[in-house]
Amino acid sequence: MSYIPFEEGLPGIRGPMAFRPETARPLNALAEVLLRDDANSLSRGDRELIGAFVSSLNDCFFCQNIHGGLAQHYMGCDMAFIDSVKRDYQVSTISEKLKSLLAIAACVQVSGKSVHVEQIQAAKNSGATEKEIHDTVLIAAAFCMYNRYVDGLGTWAPEDRQYYVDRAGRRAEEGYIDFDLYK
Amino acid sequence: MSYIPFEEGLPGIRGPMAFRPETARPLNALAEVLLRDDANSLSRGDRELIGAFVSSLNDCFFCQNIHGGLAQHYMGCDMAFIDSVKRDYQVSTISEKLKSLLAIAACVQVSGKSVHVEQIQAAKNSGATEKEIHDTVLIAAAFCMYNRYVDGLGTWAPEDRQYYVDRAGRRAEEGYIDFDLYK
Repeated sequence: MSYIPFEEGLPGIRGPMAFRPETARPLNALAEVLLRDDANSLSRGDRELIGAFVSSLNDCFFCQNIHGGLAQHYMGCDMAFIDSVKRDYQVSTISEKLKSLLAIAACVQVSGKSVHVEQIQAAKNSGATEKEIHDTVLIAAAFCMYNRYVDGLGTWAPEDRQYYVDRAGRRAEEGYIDFDLYK
Repeated sequence: MSYIPFEEGLPGIRGPMAFRPETARPLNALAEVLLRDDANSLSRGDRELIGAFVSSLNDCFFCQNIHGGLAQHYMGCDMAFIDSVKRDYQVSTISEKLKSLLAIAACVQVSGKSVHVEQIQAAKNSGATEKEIHDTVLIAAAFCMYNRYVDGLGTWAPEDRQYYVDRAGRRAEEGYIDFDLYK
């Protein structure tokens, strides 16, 4: 049971968002520009994958499945592939550039100070732009917030992972701004 | 030196904010509603203190001094008092309610899952409302993002702590939305 009595049936972050719409607005605006904005050389799939990966490091069930579901939807793969990346991205078939960005994200998850020039240089060597590096750091940092928000309030999440796969198409279409919290 | 060549002379988060104004907007909007909005039973000083406290746990020099500077400005104390709270809030003269909220914030800094019903109940017992508990969790989570953003990009910060005290009045007045990044 959540630590604050949120409306029944609202999973994960949707409970606190309905409870406090004033803070939901900038939280959603940040997700929209970071994860969905088309003016970005990282695909939506790559960005959702970074979010799902950091959420798995933070052991946040809701976020890793919502964003893992979105990643597999955008990438045209399945959850087993997303899980394999979360488990050991170094041996997966994703690009060397994306691997180098996940390495940065893994450091950010531990702390800002865990990022060192070597990881940044490796990402640059694999073709990552400064904006891609910036966005990776901010996506990873933002998920360290979203994950803590979701779990720190003891929110409820559907346990059946198929739930997230089934809803990924609608989630991808509606985005993070003008969606109905109750659908 | 920062990992991405930010504009010279912009301290801390201001470098990445000038580099990527599209993400700066929701980041600042979130800080404004969380830390400054008047429709809140937690004072601005209390909220800035929670931010400074979490930033000290994350060892983020820039954030703990910017927000520690703001906290001492609003609270009418000095940095030595803010430092004493960061060092051991349990023995400080702040209210029992604020101590119970700092205890929640300290858990959130570790992870969302580190918050347990006992800390929430202790806060309720000391008079904290559900909204105050919600906001404390989100402030702590948000600073886990801001701190990682600032340090994960290797930004520069003035070392002289008087710099932050001297600027706190202007920072308090200008807020987080309509400020000049270059002043």
